[in-house]
Amino acid sequence: MTANNIDLAATAIAGAAADATRTVDTHASSTYAPPSTSATSSPPPYQPHPLGPLSAAEITQSSRLVKAAWPAGTDCHFKVITLLEPAKAELVPYLTAERIGQSPRDINRRAFVVYYIRNTHNLHEASVNLTKNTVESNAKLGPFIHANADGEEIIAVERAVLSHPDILAEIAKLKLPEGTEVVSDPWIYGSDGVKDGKFYDDKRLMQCYLYMRDPKNSSELDSCHYAFPLPISPVIDPTTMELVRIDILPTGLDEKVKPLAPWQPVEANEYIPEAQILRTDLKPLNVVQPEGVSFTVENFSELGRLIKWQKWDFKVGFNQREGMVLYDVHYDNKPLFYRLSLSDMSIPYADPRHPFHRKAAFDLGDAGAGIMANNLRLGCDCLGSIYYISSVLSGSDGLPINMPNVICVHEQDAGIGWKHTNYRTNRAVVVRNRELVLQSILTVSNYEYILSFIFNTAGDVMYEARATGILSTQPVDLELSKTPHPYGTVVHPGVLGSFHQHFFSLRIDPMIGGHGNSIVYDEALAIPRDPELNPHGTGYIVQKTEIETSGGFDLDSRKNRVFKIVNPAVRNNVNGAAVGYKVMVPPVQPILADVDSFHYKRAEFADRSIYVTRYAEDELYAGGKYTNQSRGGTGVRSWANRQESLKAGDAVLWVQFGINHIPRVEDFPVMPAETIRVMMRPVNFFDRNPAIDVAPSTQALNCSVGLNGSTKDVEGQLNGLSLGCQDGTPSKCCASHTGS
Amino acid sequence: MTANNIDLAATAIAGAAADATRTVDTHASSTYAPPSTSATSSPPPYQPHPLGPLSAAEITQSSRLVKAAWPAGTDCHFKVITLLEPAKAELVPYLTAERIGQSPRDINRRAFVVYYIRNTHNLHEASVNLTKNTVESNAKLGPFIHANADGEEIIAVERAVLSHPDILAEIAKLKLPEGTEVVSDPWIYGSDGVKDGKFYDDKRLMQCYLYMRDPKNSSELDSCHYAFPLPISPVIDPTTMELVRIDILPTGLDEKVKPLAPWQPVEANEYIPEAQILRTDLKPLNVVQPEGVSFTVENFSELGRLIKWQKWDFKVGFNQREGMVLYDVHYDNKPLFYRLSLSDMSIPYADPRHPFHRKAAFDLGDAGAGIMANNLRLGCDCLGSIYYISSVLSGSDGLPINMPNVICVHEQDAGIGWKHTNYRTNRAVVVRNRELVLQSILTVSNYEYILSFIFNTAGDVMYEARATGILSTQPVDLELSKTPHPYGTVVHPGVLGSFHQHFFSLRIDPMIGGHGNSIVYDEALAIPRDPELNPHGTGYIVQKTEIETSGGFDLDSRKNRVFKIVNPAVRNNVNGAAVGYKVMVPPVQPILADVDSFHYKRAEFADRSIYVTRYAEDELYAGGKYTNQSRGGTGVRSWANRQESLKAGDAVLWVQFGINHIPRVEDFPVMPAETIRVMMRPVNFFDRNPAIDVAPSTQALNCSVGLNGSTKDVEGQLNGLSLGCQDGTPSKCCASHTGS
Repeated sequence: MTANNIDLAATAIAGAAADATRTVDTHASSTYAPPSTSATSSPPPYQPHPLGPLSAAEITQSSRLVKAAWPAGTDCHFKVITLLEPAKAELVPYLTAERIGQSPRDINRRAFVVYYIRNTHNLHEASVNLTKNTVESNAKLGPFIHANADGEEIIAVERAVLSHPDILAEIAKLKLPEGTEVVSDPWIYGSDGVKDGKFYDDKRLMQCYLYMRDPKNSSELDSCHYAFPLPISPVIDPTTMELVRIDILPTGLDEKVKPLAPWQPVEANEYIPEAQILRTDLKPLNVVQPEGVSFTVENFSELGRLIKWQKWDFKVGFNQREGMVLYDVHYDNKPLFYRLSLSDMSIPYADPRHPFHRKAAFDLGDAGAGIMANNLRLGCDCLGSIYYISSVLSGSDGLPINMPNVICVHEQDAGIGWKHTNYRTNRAVVVRNRELVLQSILTVSNYEYILSFIFNTAGDVMYEARATGILSTQPVDLELSKTPHPYGTVVHPGVLGSFHQHFFSLRIDPMIGGHGNSIVYDEALAIPRDPELNPHGTGYIVQKTEIETSGGFDLDSRKNRVFKIVNPAVRNNVNGAAVGYKVMVPPVQPILADVDSFHYKRAEFADRSIYVTRYAEDELYAGGKYTNQSRGGTGVRSWANRQESLKAGDAVLWVQFGINHIPRVEDFPVMPAETIRVMMRPVNFFDRNPAIDVAPSTQALNCSVGLNGSTKDVEGQLNGLSLGCQDGTPSKCCASHTGS
Repeated sequence: MTANNIDLAATAIAGAAADATRTVDTHASSTYAPPSTSATSSPPPYQPHPLGPLSAAEITQSSRLVKAAWPAGTDCHFKVITLLEPAKAELVPYLTAERIGQSPRDINRRAFVVYYIRNTHNLHEASVNLTKNTVESNAKLGPFIHANADGEEIIAVERAVLSHPDILAEIAKLKLPEGTEVVSDPWIYGSDGVKDGKFYDDKRLMQCYLYMRDPKNSSELDSCHYAFPLPISPVIDPTTMELVRIDILPTGLDEKVKPLAPWQPVEANEYIPEAQILRTDLKPLNVVQPEGVSFTVENFSELGRLIKWQKWDFKVGFNQREGMVLYDVHYDNKPLFYRLSLSDMSIPYADPRHPFHRKAAFDLGDAGAGIMANNLRLGCDCLGSIYYISSVLSGSDGLPINMPNVICVHEQDAGIGWKHTNYRTNRAVVVRNRELVLQSILTVSNYEYILSFIFNTAGDVMYEARATGILSTQPVDLELSKTPHPYGTVVHPGVLGSFHQHFFSLRIDPMIGGHGNSIVYDEALAIPRDPELNPHGTGYIVQKTEIETSGGFDLDSRKNRVFKIVNPAVRNNVNGAAVGYKVMVPPVQPILADVDSFHYKRAEFADRSIYVTRYAEDELYAGGKYTNQSRGGTGVRSWANRQESLKAGDAVLWVQFGINHIPRVEDFPVMPAETIRVMMRPVNFFDRNPAIDVAPSTQALNCSVGLNGSTKDVEGQLNGLSLGCQDGTPSKCCASHTGS
């Protein structure tokens, strides 16, 4: 057991009690009131921080309380056991008191629990009060509400698929080489509104896409099977493991499906290093922090981490669905953000042909950015001096699962932060930009998302998404490999990477200078010619528009439209403007599926770059709380469409960004990361450049190099490097500089 | 003298000959044929590379030849002496032969020379054949063509302004504190078409903006005078140093000009570190490359550098106007770009009031990215192991000026390049993205541009511009400091930073897979519903449009419009598509000045994100060859408007990007860098991910950390750091990782 893994023995609290005064959630379409069960233990004696992720003990307590609400022997399949965050009205005074050093009033700890009665489609949502050791609500959901997939289930479905005689009979028609290993990639089923044959729209289903490992190298478990897609797609009921249907895939240029024919050999396309002739001329580049890192980490709860760095301070949480969540972000003790998280993702595909028309993944709601987070010790995901944050989530049995190293925290140099040379004196002042990165990586079958919050020394916060991993490929007739395909790019002989859009929704719950923020946008507008004021036709002004009603908004680069969060009650000391932060987001093509399509209805955020809603409890996820086979009508578009006055409560900003991924051959077998960044940047928030007090590079260590070919070592570690060499063979003679 | 400074003594070749068969350029509106002069020396015995920047000897040879074309005692004020690059028809066979190891046919070396007869407005442009030691053309230009400003002149103008009695009389009205130091910032005059009073549109003028240093600290030469703008703007003829006019600045909210009144005290706003309470908690972050860098540098000429790195190879040139220029860019010996450079910049201001309406700088053509390049040894501009490139340009006397360390070359880690985790085996393969950066920084009075070409291991080339430095401020009435201003932001009491747009034009002369490229754009379009093909309304396709005729084009994110350079004659091995590179450029608001304004007419590139022209000799600069007080009609818009068929010659792509800079208080006294990147990315150019052969991080050095709290050193330098600590105080206990 590693140092920061949770000792499960210590967390096995004995039993848990269900409160007799259990309430039933009223929002579900049907409700279920389980029989009362007797309590078997006391609640924990302490009151942990209201924002701390659920501890292992609390996860166990939650599942026990829920199980205890059912007759003995009832088998619950837990999907989510995660912190139910306190209402804003309770939490804001708590955080305010905490910050000024007063004792905050205790807030009850609660867990949000989603579970099935195992092997049934009976889905329940419960709220557990951990402080009072009671189940406060417990409701059956449905019939059109479905929970996320989980890892255990995905593996069970693959096993079922690969042993089902009907499926094996179809595979046999392909006459694959002796010893071929077939694999089955799970895919969330999606919705299309069709009720036919064995398909029940009120049941949770899973579509599977079949591949094979390189038949010449079948024992290589890390062979890239995406180079060998097979034209068979079984549909499975993951609850019963029943085979619902076998879809045969269209492999031509149109929607026609041909009879299965023998597989035609193609070469492999591996990504593992032992299959490559690796480059040998990339020399090591090490990041060395001889005095350690510039940040500190405190435990604000058993698993919650308070990070302080360069005047920033914020709390880091972690949950099953969103993964990393930041709370209570301040700079120099000035409030900035109440809560920041990636709220949702949607990836609708372009291929309209059955069954591809259903491919539309919501990787957060359908799987979970937390539960799918990589253990970052597996690879070398960060550079420099790294602090890892581990966490604990729940398994389908309701017991804790260790999630080691799900977030890595490190600093990086980001080039020049600011510079000026006085040409009269030739004195240059140059300050480097240092960044603090919190990175988490999720793998959803074939695909990887590298998700980071990045802070810098100039008061900026960025959210970065890097899309990498492997395309979800599909077969195309080998003889069509060099024919342009209407819905995708051939990335390997017989392999199509179909077009798809990626939409991300970043939820920003701001408190710029305090709560009560407004959202405005500025536009730059030419002013008309006027003989006195604008005789030469060169003038322009900035026009500000306040968003007074919730709704969706678009970018408009032709107007230089910039969205800002401002606090009208707090004014800049220098110029009296409302203090603010602007949100700089790259444009994205809106979802291409038509407004009547299920893709569109479900991805409630994929049509506008900006949504603004009035804060409401329980509205955290842009695509709605339950995205698996969702049918729309719940999510940020629906909430914004309430057209509520934003004067009457806090505005919440939902920022959408993404990629229309038209695959390149270069994206296979693993795609070079495609990077998108959203930047939040102070606008008249500070009184001057907040990085003006960062020490210039020349002030720190030995940075300015000698000019006359002299060599000397940087103080400390850099033995053997010569400084100040202005010319010559760079591999032997280079200046090694040191940032501030 | 430093190791790589040029020994001027060695370059002083004795005399130079003008050829008797001198030709006269025909494009100038008037021409001048100087008398023939006798030769006094032989041409150099060797034939340097046709792309090598002019050596000191060649600069001296050029000015001597030009001077020798005039009567003895004629004093030439040289503005530009730079390489006149060979015609493409000559150079392409040369480079082709060179690459395949054959002896290329010699090409005559030529210099492009621009000069005034000193103290006159008589501007001349000459072409010097260095090989034949002759002046091949020498033409008088004008009257509406003006050369760039130069450093010597700028200093002389400031001296003239600050000693002119009329100006001193105006300054006296401000009743500045005893001992106040007034400074005068030079500004290019711009054009407005107005001919009145002492203003002659056919003369070169300079407008000046006056400031003072902090009167409480007048001896501090690096005091930020931009915090103390004065309402007086003298206009000077830099040729005669004659005072043309004194403009008094409007300091209210409208165009009215008030009588000068006594200066009202305000506090200073300094950027120099000794004026700050510096942060002390930012720990050093060192980049260490124990085995040296991964690139090699060869001299392809005396000053030209051939860089090879990670399958890339390219030649680096440097000239007075563009600064860094890249030639003959290949990857893995595959041709990609014939020539890459920043071709122009325009910065028109929003304030329509006289005299601000004329503020519109073209920093390349009006000054020069080369001649204004920082000596990068002055500050710590790069991190890691750095190779510096120095160059030589000319002074106004026609003699060489050393330009040490104008480009720094270094590698940097750019985070994760690609990653995939096989969830079945839990094996992660993660490869970091290494970049090679060529950075040059120019200072144009108040402002800095950090300009970089960046290459990576996945075949991408990026061009990055970071805007930093100090706003060109103007005075605003102190009592209006907290009143919203129509044309700017108050960034300090009494100091207005007016709105302005920055436009950059990157010129891409491509040879993707060889010459004969086409420019196309792709758009993603929804397809209509169809009961067979698209029954669910989810389908979309990609539509390709070839640009067959030169012209201007816009981005359209709503269509996901992507511009690509393709080679229809070279097909991808895997999918048969024309090999290509896409150009990813962020959107920019088009110039706001109206189409009849001089700002618009002069900035021939500031209205469209994309221009495509048919290659023509002598068309290198998007705003035309002479931008100072230009009047439009020459530049990329005019060339594109020829509507030439692109089938008949090479297409050249001009990519515009920029910022509408609405200043923030945070942008003062020095602005945190605003960064924009253009990315050129292979699309079906390679057969697979070109970075697939980069060694994963875990393969290189000791990268995967111990898991059990064990501490051990990374091989080599990292003494005292403990590895593998997963928890604890990060400043003491952190894992230090090493990239591949």
